[in-house]
This record gives sequence, C-alpha cells and structure tokens, in this order.
Amino acid sequence: MKKLGILGGGQLGRMLLQAAANYPVVTFVLENDPDCPAAKLCQHFTLGDFRNYDDVLAFGRQVDILTIEIEAINVDALETLVAEGKTVIPSPAVLRTIKNKVTQKAFYAQHAIPTPSFVVTETLQDLHQHTDKLPAVHKVGEGGYDGKGVQMLHSADDFPKGFDAPSVLEQKVDIATEIAVLAAVDQAGKVVLYPPVEMVFDPVLNLLDYQLCPAQIDKTVLWKAEAIVMRLVKAFGSAGLFAVELLVDKQGEVWVNETAPRVHNSGHHSIEAHYSSQYDMLLRVLLNYPLGNPDALSGSALVNLIGEPGYSGPARYEGLEEILKMPGAYVHIYGKAQTKPGRKMGHVTVLGTDRIDLTRKARLIKEGLKVKA
Amino acid sequence: MKKLGILGGGQLGRMLLQAAANYPVVTFVLENDPDCPAAKLCQHFTLGDFRNYDDVLAFGRQVDILTIEIEAINVDALETLVAEGKTVIPSPAVLRTIKNKVTQKAFYAQHAIPTPSFVVTETLQDLHQHTDKLPAVHKVGEGGYDGKGVQMLHSADDFPKGFDAPSVLEQKVDIATEIAVLAAVDQAGKVVLYPPVEMVFDPVLNLLDYQLCPAQIDKTVLWKAEAIVMRLVKAFGSAGLFAVELLVDKQGEVWVNETAPRVHNSGHHSIEAHYSSQYDMLLRVLLNYPLGNPDALSGSALVNLIGEPGYSGPARYEGLEEILKMPGAYVHIYGKAQTKPGRKMGHVTVLGTDRIDLTRKARLIKEGLKVKA
Repeated sequence: MKKLGILGGGQLGRMLLQAAANYPVVTFVLENDPDCPAAKLCQHFTLGDFRNYDDVLAFGRQVDILTIEIEAINVDALETLVAEGKTVIPSPAVLRTIKNKVTQKAFYAQHAIPTPSFVVTETLQDLHQHTDKLPAVHKVGEGGYDGKGVQMLHSADDFPKGFDAPSVLEQKVDIATEIAVLAAVDQAGKVVLYPPVEMVFDPVLNLLDYQLCPAQIDKTVLWKAEAIVMRLVKAFGSAGLFAVELLVDKQGEVWVNETAPRVHNSGHHSIEAHYSSQYDMLLRVLLNYPLGNPDALSGSALVNLIGEPGYSGPARYEGLEEILKMPGAYVHIYGKAQTKPGRKMGHVTVLGTDRIDLTRKARLIKEGLKVKA
Repeated sequence: MKKLGILGGGQLGRMLLQAAANYPVVTFVLENDPDCPAAKLCQHFTLGDFRNYDDVLAFGRQVDILTIEIEAINVDALETLVAEGKTVIPSPAVLRTIKNKVTQKAFYAQHAIPTPSFVVTETLQDLHQHTDKLPAVHKVGEGGYDGKGVQMLHSADDFPKGFDAPSVLEQKVDIATEIAVLAAVDQAGKVVLYPPVEMVFDPVLNLLDYQLCPAQIDKTVLWKAEAIVMRLVKAFGSAGLFAVELLVDKQGEVWVNETAPRVHNSGHHSIEAHYSSQYDMLLRVLLNYPLGNPDALSGSALVNLIGEPGYSGPARYEGLEEILKMPGAYVHIYGKAQTKPGRKMGHVTVLGTDRIDLTRKARLIKEGLKVKA
C-alpha cells in the first residue's frame, strides 16, 4: 500500500482522512498538536512543526506521496523531497508562489490572469504613496489565514491598520458576487471543474457567512470564470486540488481574488452534495487514480460553525439537536476541544433544490446553532 | 464530550468511525488485533477479547455508551455494565436472544413473527428424526457468520454436513426474493425504516453477490414487510439499528430469516445513496440525537468485494482504476492487509435510477474488480 503524508492536522486533514479510509493507503500526519482534529484518524501521527525544514524532511522520507492542508509549509524541505524522488502534490513551486500573496499576485499578472489592480508595499510608510488606490484592500504577503492578514483601507485614516511588512495593496473591486471554483488536476494534467459556489460573507468577522451551490450567475460569467480557472491551473502546471476565489464585478467581469492549492472551506458541501467530494477527488489525484465526477447530486448550502463572540473554553454546541432534525442537513463538528471567538469549529451542509429553500435553511442553521463555551 | 465504546474492530466499526468524526464524541474500540480495520480510526484502541468478561467490563467502564459491531460479545459483562449505569445499545437482552439462532427463532415464534417452520436439533443424530422437514436449512446456534454455520440439507445424505451442536433445522421456503429492511430505534422508542433492499446471493459461497435498492416488490409485500419489522423491533424493546433479513415466498408471504442488532452489510449503500447512512443513524441513536432521514437520494446497487478463490496473501485490487472511472461508483476498501478466499475485503456502491442500469453496473463491478494476492 502507498504511504500518504499530510502536512497539517486541522479539519481539512481530518475530512481528508475520513475519505482516505475508503482507499488502500497508509496515512501519516505531521502537526505540532497531539490533540489536533486529524491526530486520531491517521494511521501514523508525527508530532512536529511543518514550518521546520528538518521536521518536514524526516516526515516526508517515510512516505511515498505528500500533500498539504495549509500553505505555511517549509517549501525548501518539499523541494529536497522531490529531488529525492517523492511525489509532492501540489508542487513546491506552486506552493512557493501561492503562500506569499505578493508572489501570487505577480504570478497572475505574469500569466495575464485577471486580478484586481495592485501595488506591492514593503512598509506601512509606503501606503502614503498610493492614496490614489483607495478604497483598497491591504493583504499581508505571508501568514494571513481565515480573514486575518486582510485589512480594508477606506481612506488614509485607515493606514495604521495596514501591515508593516511586504504586502499587496489591491484596488477595491465593485463586487456584485463572490464565487469560488474548485479544480482538480490529475498527475497527467487532466482537469475537472466543480460548479461554482456563491459566497456570502459576514461583514464583521470577514469570514464566510454561508455559501450556496449552484451560484446564481449568468452563463457568460460562468464561462469567463471557467476559462480563467482552466488557464490558471494550466499555468500552475501542477497536479492537485485548487480552490479559486473569484470576484464578479457589477459589469460582469471576473477577477481572481486568491487561490488555495488544497482542499478548501468552499468545497465542504461536496461531501454530501456532489458525486465525488473534494476530499475523494484529492485522494484520487494523490493515488494516481482516475478523476471523480465533480457534478452535483443536489443543490446545497454550507454554513460554517464559528466560535461565538464572547465565549472561550470547552466547546458546547447550542441548538445541535434542532438542526439534526432538519431533513437533508449534515453536521460536521471538527473535534476541537476549545472554542474561541471566530474559530472554525465545524460546518453544516444542507441539501435543497431552489435558492429560496436553501437560503431559508442556511439562515435557520446560522441562527439556530451556536458554538459557545 | 460523550465517550463511545465499540466492541469489535472490523469494517463495520471502521465505517462507524468514519461517520463518528462528524460528531462531538470520543471513540474507543476493543479488538484483539492491533491491525484490525478500525484500530487506527478510533481515538482510543484497546487490545483485548470482546468474548472475555473481564476485558469487556474493563473496556466498558471507561466509556459512557457502548455498542457492538459483531454479536459474539460477552453479554454477561454488558449486563454488569448496564447495572453500573452505562448505556448499552442494543440491550444485552436483545443481544442474548439474537446471538444464538435457537433463541432467536424461539423469540420469533413467541411473538408471532412469521418465520420459516423449524425444529431444534441438539446433535447430528437428531436430524434423522426430522426427515419430514427436508429440504431444509441447518443453522448452528452460536458462532455462525458470513455464510459459515449455515448448511443446506437436500436429503438425508446431506446429514453428515450438518452441525453436531444445538442448531435450528428450518424448512426451506420457496423463495421468490430475499430482501432486507433496516430499522432504527431511538432511545425514546421512535422507529424509522429504510426502504427495503433486494439481495442476490452467490450460490457457491452463500455470500451476497450484489444488492439493489429499491427492491422490486409489490406494494402488499412492502406493507407486510414493514409491518413485520415494526412488530419485531417493538418486541425487542431496545434502541439500536436492526437489519432484518426477510424471505418473500412465491405466494407473496413474508418471513423473517434473521436479524442483526447492528449496522449490517445490507446497509452499506446508505452511505452515499440515502440522506442518513446506517452509520450516521446509529450514531444519532447512540448519542441520543434526533433520528435521521432514511429516504433514498438515488437508487443504488451494492457489490461486495470478496477475496477471490485461490488467492491468499497481501491484498491486490485488480481492476480498481477501471471501476473508479464509472460515474457514481464509490469504492470502499476495508484496509485488511491479507486476503483469503471468501473474505470480505471491501464493497462498491453505485448510484443509478433504474433497475436495468443498476444491474448492468453491478455486474460490471462484479466482473471488473477482483481481490487477489
């Protein structure tokens, strides 16, 4: 049996391992927390730091195939492992490009991938040279995650909220809709795309509020989005699963916001609502099996369960029983013992056919299920 | 978080654990093989013998809720655990009744549950007093599993093939169809039934060949089957998941063949083809959550992957890639390192809408995917 190593042991790793138990594969996880969501679902858990060269190298040498569930990985070690003959998906080169928002944006520009107009800032001071870009979004190059490392700058008064490190200052797009497209690329370069999902964000936490699939977009927007994603994954030239977040402006133009070279929050609904889930699909890519079927079995809404503001401590899921009575609702709790405000603690997918029904169910879940301490 | 103990670590435990990772629960498994399919998917694995009183007692005392994935459990220990305040599902009384085919049959007779006419034999010699029952099926009271412990007796010449131990001699029913109905009973006694599945057996191995859902049966047969299963689970008076195998004779009468008080091979298709899988449903029962929705999202066929005759050793899955290309096919490999003839190594569920399509796909999978060494 092939040995698969996963760098990172969060909920993405956990759900990947749930799916991995369907295939003949031996699983390994590297994470620095023995109580992380993936620790008890893998066959071999290694306590270590995926940011550390030696840890990643030692971990990678015992497996055949490596993948990631977070971008903040030691890429140097992955490059060494590729040189030693290991299969690393996504490729270290793509990971290096994507993990830093500055190089990610430069990559889009270089490959004529439509992306909002931007400049690079090295320090907070630099912002003052770019007042013409306002209103704008300031995104720190390295280390942003889950809404952290992104700051809206409406006017020069907001500059102190920016990042005093290499960052991207991106002109604000007049957004009509935010969508995401998942793409799977197999080891021979064959690509399949999932139907776009439409995202609705919480304006306070800057985290996904709920998400609908299919997205309500014009056919022309769909075609543009699909063409852009195809061009982008071809440019990456790497096997893997890619989640591409796209902005649709009020003129119907489509812009790449950012890409994750891995399974992604925006693909959780695929576990129940699509023939092949994003986890199943990534496993097929990793194990060099034929790609699965990305089509939807049903329309779906996805609600993240986020730690409620004001509560920190052992997690308690208020309203869980009511939500479990909802026909077609699927609860996923990530097994994190402690909640804190804004922490991703789980998600609920609910099936439905039309948008009104899905929106109503998403709101019921959002209102009815709270993570408290 | 509640602590759930599973007695037995085979594929049923493995799939239960895959589903358990969606809920806030800490999982424990007791099994005498550290390489069993469930060992690496639980949070706490205990090496021990679920037939041994002390092992079961010690294991059970560390958890809140206990369930089984095999009947051959030490029931005395479970009774002690109930007396000590643990929740045991199914109840030890039901387990005691069902684990022995003699008491199981007596229970059906006592509760006027239609079941094929039978006598009890204590020794091989006893068979000679019941030549009037021939052709008949001889079923050993304790220890039968997966087609073992069941012997067809066509004539007195077959008597030496019978069992020299307490057994049931059951008159052969003129079978038109074999079906199975899964029932879930929550801790308040509420019942939901899954739609019946129709089973096609391999006449050589006496193992399931493939299975179709929905079963092709008349409405009157469906109503009889549902009424019998409802009466049966009410008579059991225990929470749990019950798989009831039923024989439909050529006159349209319905007879209970046997019952398993647990998740069952005949329910694997529910993972992908039904809103709430049998594993999800059992977890809801165990954790005292509302019951799920047993309805089908799609028609389905289920093919077991059985160790090919003539091959013993490290398992190899011949034809796996071809089957993974089939749209709507879901492969489940149970992670058993060694194959041997007749061993259950995995299964494939395939979705489809009509019977012709499902039968064709089931045959393609059956022919196309072989477990060899």
